[in-house]
This record gives sequence, C-alpha cells and structure tokens, in this order.
Amino acid sequence: MAFGWIDEQARARRAAGLVRTLRPRPADSPLLDLASNDYLGLARHPEVTGAAADAAHRWGGGATGSRLVTGTTELHGELERELADFCGFESALVFSSGYAANLAAVTALAQHGSLVVSDAGNHASLIDGCRLARGTTQVVGHADPDAVRKALGTHQGPAVVVSDTVFSVDGDAAPLAELADACREYGAGLVVDDAHGLGVLGDGGRGAPHAAGLAGAPDVVVTVTLSKSFGSQGGAVLGPAAVIDHMVNAARTFIFDTGLAPAAAGAALGALRLLRREPERALRARAVATVLHTRLTAEGLEAVRPDAAVVSVRAPSPERAVRWAADCREAGLAVGCFRPPSVPDGISRLRLTARADLTEEQIEHAVSVISRTR
Amino acid sequence: MAFGWIDEQARARRAAGLVRTLRPRPADSPLLDLASNDYLGLARHPEVTGAAADAAHRWGGGATGSRLVTGTTELHGELERELADFCGFESALVFSSGYAANLAAVTALAQHGSLVVSDAGNHASLIDGCRLARGTTQVVGHADPDAVRKALGTHQGPAVVVSDTVFSVDGDAAPLAELADACREYGAGLVVDDAHGLGVLGDGGRGAPHAAGLAGAPDVVVTVTLSKSFGSQGGAVLGPAAVIDHMVNAARTFIFDTGLAPAAAGAALGALRLLRREPERALRARAVATVLHTRLTAEGLEAVRPDAAVVSVRAPSPERAVRWAADCREAGLAVGCFRPPSVPDGISRLRLTARADLTEEQIEHAVSVISRTR
Repeated sequence: MAFGWIDEQARARRAAGLVRTLRPRPADSPLLDLASNDYLGLARHPEVTGAAADAAHRWGGGATGSRLVTGTTELHGELERELADFCGFESALVFSSGYAANLAAVTALAQHGSLVVSDAGNHASLIDGCRLARGTTQVVGHADPDAVRKALGTHQGPAVVVSDTVFSVDGDAAPLAELADACREYGAGLVVDDAHGLGVLGDGGRGAPHAAGLAGAPDVVVTVTLSKSFGSQGGAVLGPAAVIDHMVNAARTFIFDTGLAPAAAGAALGALRLLRREPERALRARAVATVLHTRLTAEGLEAVRPDAAVVSVRAPSPERAVRWAADCREAGLAVGCFRPPSVPDGISRLRLTARADLTEEQIEHAVSVISRTR
Repeated sequence: MAFGWIDEQARARRAAGLVRTLRPRPADSPLLDLASNDYLGLARHPEVTGAAADAAHRWGGGATGSRLVTGTTELHGELERELADFCGFESALVFSSGYAANLAAVTALAQHGSLVVSDAGNHASLIDGCRLARGTTQVVGHADPDAVRKALGTHQGPAVVVSDTVFSVDGDAAPLAELADACREYGAGLVVDDAHGLGVLGDGGRGAPHAAGLAGAPDVVVTVTLSKSFGSQGGAVLGPAAVIDHMVNAARTFIFDTGLAPAAAGAALGALRLLRREPERALRARAVATVLHTRLTAEGLEAVRPDAAVVSVRAPSPERAVRWAADCREAGLAVGCFRPPSVPDGISRLRLTARADLTEEQIEHAVSVISRTR
C-alpha cells in the first residue's frame, strides 16, 4: 500500500500519547478562552465582524485571482496604506496568511549567496522560509546578539538576520534594538516577525519594532499577522517601498497565491481603525498578562514573566501538561498546551493568552482553575 | 546598505520590461472579466457573499488560533464533511490557502527516504512543497506517464507522484488515469492538485479525480482550492481518513497556521451547496471554454484546446503579450498575461478564463476585442 507507512507512524504516535485531534467548537462555547491569539478581544467585536460582512457583500466572497491579476481590490490597497501608516513603515503588502508573508520575506530577501542568521526559537514559518530560501542559513542561540555578530562576521555579501519579536511559546521578547545594532555593524538587514507584538506592544499597539525605535528604518523589514490582535486572517510585510516592490516581483507566495479574501481584509481594517480609536486596548492586554503572571506565581506556579500578552506556565511532563489542560477544559477554561514536538526545547507548558477584554472576575477564575488543577 | 542589491535588481527588471505592478480594482469595475479564476461566477453571487457575511457575524472575523487550539469551529467541520462527500473522498482538511494545502500534502507525504516524482509544469506551490519535503525530488517531463514509470523504477521505499490535474498556464489536463496506473505498478501514492478542476470537471463539478474514477481511492490524495470555482479563499486536502489524520499530526502549514477565517469557510460552503443544486454550472464553464477556443481559432489565433475552463492564446513575444493585454484592457476586457519568468517554457500567452456566467454577447465581444488587438 502506497501510504502503509502512515499507519506505522500513527501507531507510534498513539503509543507515545502524542496524537493530535481536532475539537470543533460551537459558536456559543461556554469555555473561558485563554487559548486563542485574539489578544484584543476583537475577533467577535461587532465592528470587526460587521466590516467583514460589509466587505463580503461589496467585494465578493473571494479575491478571485492572484494579487497580480484580479486579486487586488481597492480595499487591499486601503488596508496596506493604513497598516503601513499605523506601524510607521513606508509600504505594506498583504498576504493570505502570516505563514505566507514569512515565507515571502525570507525567500525574497535571502537569495543565492546570502546568509540568513536565524534564531533557534523562531516560528515554523520562518524556519520554512529559511529552508526555501536560496541563501545559506545559520541557526544561532535564542535571543543572542553576540551569536548573531559572530555569524555575520563569517560572511561576505548580503545577509539578513531573522527573528520573532515575541516568541510564541514562552512569550519572551527578542532584544530588537541590540539585533538592529548587530545588523548595522555588518550591513545586514533585519527581518522580524511581529505576529505576537502587533496590537500589544508599542505606542497604541504599533508593535515591537515601533517600540524599539525601528519603525521606518531602511534596513528593517517586519512581518505581521492579521489573525491575532486584528481578529481576522492574513499577514503582511512592512518595509521600505523598494523592498515591498521587490516582494511584488519576487515573492512566490505573493505571485502564485490567491489574494486575501475581501472579508478578511475588511475585518483587519475594521480592527485597525478600532485600535486607533481605542489605543488603551494594547496597554490593557499587557496589564492582564502581568496580573496573570503575578497571581500564578503567587500560587507557586512557575511562569515566565511576560513581555507581551502570552503567559507560559511550565508543566512537569508532556503527559501532565496534556492532563492539566484537559482538567482546565473540564472546569470551563480553555488553555493552550504546548509539548514536544512543537516546542524547541522539549519543555512542556500551558500557554495562556491575556486578552484585553478579560474581566477581573475572569482572571481570578482562570488563576483559581489553573492552580487547582495543577 | 543592507538592501542595496534590491535596487540593482529593480533596475535590471525595468530595463527588461518585466516590472510587475498592482492595479487595485474598484468594486464596480466596468471591465469584462476573463482574467480571474472565478470559473463559476460565484464570487459575487448573493448566496455566497451572504454565507460569508453570516459566518462572520456568527463565528467572528477570524478563527483566532491554530486549527489544533481554538481555530476549528463546527463550521470548519461542516465544510470538511460536505467537501469530502461531494468529491467522493473519506475525509477532508481545510487550510488557509491552496498554497498551504499543497505544501502540507507534499511535505507530509514525502518524508526522509521518499521519492517525489514531480511534473515539470507543476504549480509553484507544489514545487515549493517538493523543496521543503525531506524526500528526494525527481522532476519529469510534462504529462509523461512513461517518464514517471522510469523515475519510480529507480527507487526503493515510499514514493509519491505529484501533479496538477489541470495546468494553470495552458489549461491542459494531466493524464490522471495513466498516472494512477503507473503509481499502482510501483506501489506509489498519487498526489494531485485539482485547483483548476474542482467545480469545472467531473460529474456536477466534482473534479478531475472524480472524472478519472479515482475518487475515494486508498492511494490517491487530492488538494483543492476554495478560491477559484468556490469564489472564496482557502484550500483543502482530500483523501483516506488515515492520511488526513496524518496531516493533522505532521503538516507544518496546518499545525502552525491560523485556521481559515469563518467568512471564507462560510462562502465556500455556500458555493458548494449552490453547485450541488445547480450542477449545470460546471458543464456551462466547459462549454464557454470550448466556444471561446473555437471562435478564437476561427479568427486565426493560436489557442490550446481547453480541457477545463482555461483558454491559453499564444503571443509572439513577452513585449507583445504585455501590449496585447494592455490593449484589451483599454477596450474594456481584462485578460491574464503570462510571460517569463512565470511560464515554465518561456512562451508568453494571454490566459482567458471561461466563466460559466458569461453571456453569448460577452463571449462575442471578448473574441472580437482579442482578435482586433492582436
């Protein structure tokens, strides 16, 4: 049988207790959500869902083609202009996902003969971008500007340093300013994925690069996702206009993909405008994370001090992590559960997201459940 | 400067006349559309846009997380069941794009030690899947089952043969039944991308694998897109339940991507249900393609006989192709223009899509404009 080997892998996975299953959720789930990446609580905000619905009615259910053929509507252009302006960059280019944006940024900026210096904790999409890129990749230790300098010092020719701004698993921030310094010493470009920073960090949620004084820098390219703080779907690359023009001409996941659906572009634009009007949401997400961390630590749990809106709590083993998350769910609380092989360091943890719209009571309830089920 | 090399590439591109630019379209574009992949004319059908809007209102602007965490709604489950049922496969798994579905299918089914036999005309996303996969790729001549046999004969261990069912550029169909025979002789799996077949080929638009008698086969995996005939966004993998379970556990573009936005899932489901009710739309798209081809050929133009809904017309040079498409646009007709480096064979062409909802008058007008501006 052509796919017989799959059954063997499935047996091994079952034996190791590592089977992943999908759990479709109802529209009116009674669970308290500390598992999604809906950091600002906007995914179901009526302004956001209304903007999605309006865009579908006005522009259609899909973009109908590649962005280069029929898939660019004026709505895409509007979103790109407002996103670039908000984050402080010259230009922006919207993709169907953050994954696609990361593949595009790394492959288009690391051509044959280039060096890519990649943080060991980077997201899967950046890693896949490195693997697809025609340049040579050197993986360096997590959040280590000296290791970056050392790698850049070995190379002649174009180089880019690639890093998440906020790492998804532990919620810790990259040393952006130091990374930018290291890049500038060697004339390298800096490409950072602000998926977990946009909407949470920086002035009014303008993101980690903005907070680090890197917005609009000629040697910095930022990727973002529209599917987390912005409660929608899609991703974008932000940077100098010349870099964005280069993406339009060279990035395969831009050229050969259908454009983002109008509803998703509309929802993201709705969220962006709402965040401009209510910038305190960003601050609130960070404050909730700090409170969660403080209270969990006070309960004797080992949690990483959050740099953004992700709070990571250590579990003693993969089995215990799975059990812990299941017990939380039983008690009405949805939490993320990260374990091998999805964690770079082999450490299992619960992953909590601090939504800006969580109430004091909800936070108390969450801490109590997590502590009680440990 | 970190990105100084980009300016040099941009200059070279300008000198060669190969600069790509985005042309945002208004919602009420006066152009007659023969450029999009909206084969059934459903992207702006009120049932499809209404389903998108309803889903956004009910489920939110985004899926809020990975399909494995919070990103699977009951709507995703419903779409997957109905899609699998429609196409005749045991299971389906929905992705944020067809690109992501192709990366998933190839990488998850071609692990270390596997051979991937890939058609030279395959879509960029299949090629990127081959490059990301841990197996070894052998590219074989276009639509050549004997070359496939020869490649499979050189290899011990798991193997998959990867092909588009309908090739985007020329609109020609792969010899699916013969490819399946070749695979079976060698115990290989067959992975085919039915992006341009779903909704157009097969009984009521069930797709090229269904038409070839391969639906539900234990050694066949099909990828589709929801962004063409279904007028939405997203992609899916269809196949045996064990293969789909394997994707859930092993496909990085599934595990590490945010789930498809509810509006896109809703739009696709709306289109699928409409197509079930109006199966003649599939036949009509093929008929329009045949009429277009016949009339263009009668005008002395060199067009490839269409196997689905894409009609490819040869242009004498890249420059003439660009000029031709621009002249069509001036005359109110949007057509696709494919030229190097987006064409595998270096031949430039106009690419026309035969929408099911084109009227006789629109077809006549299109043929007249294309002929007049040649």
